[in-house]
Amino acid sequence: MIIIMKPNASAEAVSKVKNFIESNGLTAHLSEGTEVTIVGVVGDKTKIQGANIEMMDGVDKIVAVTESYKVVNKKFHPEDSVITVGNAKIGPGHLAMMAGPCAIENHDMLLETACAVKKAGAQFLRGGAYKPRTSPYAFQGLEEEGLQYMKEAREATGLNVICEVTSLRALETAVKYVDMIQIGARNMQNFELLKEAGKAGIPVLLKRGLCATIDEWLNAAEYIASEGNPNIVLCERGIRTYETATRNTLDISAIPVIRAKSHLPVIVDPSHATGVRAYIEPISKAALAVGADGLIVEVHPCPSCALSDGPQSLTFEQFEHLTEQLQPYAKLSGRVFNE
Amino acid sequence: MIIIMKPNASAEAVSKVKNFIESNGLTAHLSEGTEVTIVGVVGDKTKIQGANIEMMDGVDKIVAVTESYKVVNKKFHPEDSVITVGNAKIGPGHLAMMAGPCAIENHDMLLETACAVKKAGAQFLRGGAYKPRTSPYAFQGLEEEGLQYMKEAREATGLNVICEVTSLRALETAVKYVDMIQIGARNMQNFELLKEAGKAGIPVLLKRGLCATIDEWLNAAEYIASEGNPNIVLCERGIRTYETATRNTLDISAIPVIRAKSHLPVIVDPSHATGVRAYIEPISKAALAVGADGLIVEVHPCPSCALSDGPQSLTFEQFEHLTEQLQPYAKLSGRVFNE
Amino acid sequence: MIIIMKPNASAEAVSKVKNFIESNGLTAHLSEGTEVTIVGVVGDKTKIQGANIEMMDGVDKIVAVTESYKVVNKKFHPEDSVITVGNAKIGPGHLAMMAGPCAIENHDMLLETACAVKKAGAQFLRGGAYKPRTSPYAFQGLEEEGLQYMKEAREATGLNVICEVTSLRALETAVKYVDMIQIGARNMQNFELLKEAGKAGIPVLLKRGLCATIDEWLNAAEYIASEGNPNIVLCERGIRTYETATRNTLDISAIPVIRAKSHLPVIVDPSHATGVRAYIEPISKAALAVGADGLIVEVHPCPSCALSDGPQSLTFEQFEHLTEQLQPYAKLSGRVFNE
Amino acid sequence: MIIIMKPNASAEAVSKVKNFIESNGLTAHLSEGTEVTIVGVVGDKTKIQGANIEMMDGVDKIVAVTESYKVVNKKFHPEDSVITVGNAKIGPGHLAMMAGPCAIENHDMLLETACAVKKAGAQFLRGGAYKPRTSPYAFQGLEEEGLQYMKEAREATGLNVICEVTSLRALETAVKYVDMIQIGARNMQNFELLKEAGKAGIPVLLKRGLCATIDEWLNAAEYIASEGNPNIVLCERGIRTYETATRNTLDISAIPVIRAKSHLPVIVDPSHATGVRAYIEPISKAALAVGADGLIVEVHPCPSCALSDGPQSLTFEQFEHLTEQLQPYAKLSGRVFNE
Repeated sequence: MIIIMKPNASAEAVSKVKNFIESNGLTAHLSEGTEVTIVGVVGDKTKIQGANIEMMDGVDKIVAVTESYKVVNKKFHPEDSVITVGNAKIGPGHLAMMAGPCAIENHDMLLETACAVKKAGAQFLRGGAYKPRTSPYAFQGLEEEGLQYMKEAREATGLNVICEVTSLRALETAVKYVDMIQIGARNMQNFELLKEAGKAGIPVLLKRGLCATIDEWLNAAEYIASEGNPNIVLCERGIRTYETATRNTLDISAIPVIRAKSHLPVIVDPSHATGVRAYIEPISKAALAVGADGLIVEVHPCPSCALSDGPQSLTFEQFEHLTEQLQPYAKLSGRVFNE
Repeated sequence: MIIIMKPNASAEAVSKVKNFIESNGLTAHLSEGTEVTIVGVVGDKTKIQGANIEMMDGVDKIVAVTESYKVVNKKFHPEDSVITVGNAKIGPGHLAMMAGPCAIENHDMLLETACAVKKAGAQFLRGGAYKPRTSPYAFQGLEEEGLQYMKEAREATGLNVICEVTSLRALETAVKYVDMIQIGARNMQNFELLKEAGKAGIPVLLKRGLCATIDEWLNAAEYIASEGNPNIVLCERGIRTYETATRNTLDISAIPVIRAKSHLPVIVDPSHATGVRAYIEPISKAALAVGADGLIVEVHPCPSCALSDGPQSLTFEQFEHLTEQLQPYAKLSGRVFNE
Repeated sequence: MIIIMKPNASAEAVSKVKNFIESNGLTAHLSEGTEVTIVGVVGDKTKIQGANIEMMDGVDKIVAVTESYKVVNKKFHPEDSVITVGNAKIGPGHLAMMAGPCAIENHDMLLETACAVKKAGAQFLRGGAYKPRTSPYAFQGLEEEGLQYMKEAREATGLNVICEVTSLRALETAVKYVDMIQIGARNMQNFELLKEAGKAGIPVLLKRGLCATIDEWLNAAEYIASEGNPNIVLCERGIRTYETATRNTLDISAIPVIRAKSHLPVIVDPSHATGVRAYIEPISKAALAVGADGLIVEVHPCPSCALSDGPQSLTFEQFEHLTEQLQPYAKLSGRVFNE
Repeated sequence: MIIIMKPNASAEAVSKVKNFIESNGLTAHLSEGTEVTIVGVVGDKTKIQGANIEMMDGVDKIVAVTESYKVVNKKFHPEDSVITVGNAKIGPGHLAMMAGPCAIENHDMLLETACAVKKAGAQFLRGGAYKPRTSPYAFQGLEEEGLQYMKEAREATGLNVICEVTSLRALETAVKYVDMIQIGARNMQNFELLKEAGKAGIPVLLKRGLCATIDEWLNAAEYIASEGNPNIVLCERGIRTYETATRNTLDISAIPVIRAKSHLPVIVDPSHATGVRAYIEPISKAALAVGADGLIVEVHPCPSCALSDGPQSLTFEQFEHLTEQLQPYAKLSGRVFNE
């Protein structure tokens, strides 16, 4: 931690800051410049956590030198993690392909979709049972009934199944039915939910919040990890910007940034990132080329009849075409597809 | 609803769209342009809700003409609402002044603050018992113990008390202790929480999400209202932009926009919007001048010892100075301060 | 300047950085932490300007401690500046009211508008002769003919006149006709234009770029000032965000931030910030309450016939009503209106 | 064009709008809904360009149906363009690789870099002679002397050369020395410069503005094209968002969006997009995978001695490694590298 003093900070103010640091068992290094004095703080910063040094007389600002996340930080865990979910692995050397409808609408459409995406090479079936919708008047999901269909689809196809949970209650129910839960963009900082997901121990797909920084995203992962659950996969799904040509703006650079800062796997959701079916193939290729550990794609037996997200859903044929197109990109990144 | 066809849409495609609209009991008006054809849809749109018209052959895009929120929409309730909370009113003619510490730290500091803000003119005591914090290692709040202190502060001072709730469990507990609950920025689209707050019936202060549009914010309010709870006050607290000179960017225009679109009262949180104590007074004046129904301000007996948000908290003296400075602005906007 | 070393930086790397600093005549202060070492650099940083210290082995990042702008920096000029333009003053104690059409359309409409805004209390006539338009097919302005009309309007009314310049050629012409030039949002980082405006010596209204940080904005002002022209007034006109309910998002906090960082006056453009006529009055009140030194408002004899920006232009009656409404706010901020 | 009336618009207001449309030789189609009436306008909209229909009584808003750019619009030119620059082609089937220093520092470093990037497979040498810098005190470029070195580098190596121009004066000079000019992000809406670049006829690399929408970017290209210069290549270089982990946020989806809306080639600048050397390789792979027509990359003989952008510049070895890594991605996208 570095404390930057104001240009006009008195010697007394500097001295008080120094004393405060030292009285807490830390060391203070002073650099007295012509314009400003800076104070380097060395030692265990948790001792002064909560202290408002920026409010002390003469202090201009504080610059953090180290990240607040630890368990998910690559600095303390340099090797990339491989997460096991059901019968699949997510991480280096593997390509996780997750596909399925935005919302589970009924038993038959889910099973039909499961068979189709499995045939095309997916190892995971996604499907929404609890739908977070902007308007209270839009379809909200089948809830536990939907989870039951997911379980049946798993039994019928051998696919691993993943569902979003939007509340503690949904989490409690979902763990009984699915292999992996998803915490969506709108709940990325629902800290109660993160903690409970940490306690539940089940693998978690943690989507990036609509306007979350990468730092906040990793801190959200830390909430889960710090409760003892290391089975976390991150998912970049686009952030909100001024551009409206796509539903969100995919922050593709987030993949190499995450790779540099964390050991957790990270996948890409091209469906929510673009919101436009025609852009899913090029964006999926880019995701593999940039080094993503997988994709999560919306697929529907009849996108034009879908109860939600139709315009960004692929048909079975389109998804099959997509996985074929992706094969050489998977190979180039040293990943085994559909093992 | 307007359906815009693609430039090359076939007559058959246009015809199919028209038939679909009419087969659902709505009326379709065609405008055949030299470049494109547009289809105006007239009638009760809930009949085709969930239909993915944008996926039909030849359709380019859909333009919504009417808002999805109804109960909180000014169109259907032209008169501005006045919300009663405890012994105070929020809305036209009134100035709601809420103040208190970011986090409740202990019994004494809360009571001391309550007395100070009451003396300076506040009618509401704010204080956080459940703190949503970016890092899992930061102070998370006293929870029910904090709520108990709030209740005691109310009994001692007659102030109305307001607390943020961050989960269904917190909501269930809080309703037993406080006059108004707050749903914070990070939970603005925690739809389960919104629905339960709607069922609970208690007055709700609904903060705008960090990157929520005004439309999404009003839809979040609609979640509460559609469960039968009309006692909603909105709170603009700054949005996330690229500018880092302030903690967030206060969207001051949101106040007149809300005034035009909804009948709900709307207040401003200058503390979170700026994150800098020195900017709170000018921003508070601007908030009153632009027509806000009130303010929520962080006040702490000793900001430099605060467990959270110290740099943006006012001392008692500063808060008293603030309320004095605001008197003429309240008067100019026809509002009674501290009635 | 602070140099933060990587956690694993070798002693040799630290030593090389230290030697480099010292070999350039500066002083290096080392703080060796348990996790990282930081190096405080003291002395005249221009000696190592251009050096890429962040590329030296073991260096993680550089933190700037002091701003790159000097002449416009409040640190070196603590007293707020008052700028004289024609017969008016802009700065503390004064309220600059600028009004007029977006584009000068012809002689008569300009003169008519000039008389009307003068009567309502404006001291400045604004009017666009060179219009930066998104589409090449939109009206681009009358150019020198428009400037001639501005000069005539000044002679007829005694108003000071201000025009935007969009190129060196326009600047060269405009200085012969107007009292103040405006550099618009799209040209805020047209550095050639800034330098020439600096050399021209004429007062400059420098609008904030659509997505410029306050720091970049002050550096743009520094371009003008460093050429010897201290007559600069800043203008906040809204920044681009994801919110579309208003044309731009007025960053009202920018006013107190500028006040804290620079001695230059700063005014607000509520017309471009909101893009909606109905929001101009509340936003103008907020601008005065927050401490702005003035306003620049679009006024047109017949907004519905305007060649550009009609929807955000006020009629004469509306502008007169606006200035009346603003009187008490001007008084509260200690400013003389229409002196 | 669609005109949406207000819910309470009178029959007379609707009638006036209809008459206005028809009196201008266009056709108006009315759709009278239960809540609102909409008016579809059919015919040549240039007849009512400049009319402020949104200001007419009872009008709520206008929805544009067709784009304002024509020459660069794919609708009117469905085949993708291939642009010839010197001895190279940019467009489908080709991979344009541009490389060189951010700023031209002297003759030798430029020539040395030219030889190195040519050997590694580049067909274009980039180099800045006019540098737009945030601070007036930073290195501003060698200007004409730098252009002379570029010309000499071309003669020595056969590479095509490209330079940014930041003013009309720079443009006038540059056309005598280079094969292609670049209009940078800060000048994307410097409309005078765009028009002159259009008249000059020289191939133009048009970078996207820091916060320009894709629509505004294509309109900027239209400024050049409408002056008769069809030789335009677009360059995505990252947009400004709240995320600070990278210098800008590369909007990778912009590539397929441009592909869908325009026939112009589009390349990617991974150096400015990320600002971090380590991210350039993964982002370059992603750019090729998503379908970009080329890359422009900063390369410097000694990044740590560079006068600008050192941290994002590659060494010769790194650039050579990059081009090798990209070969299979070029092949997958059907492009010939270094033909």
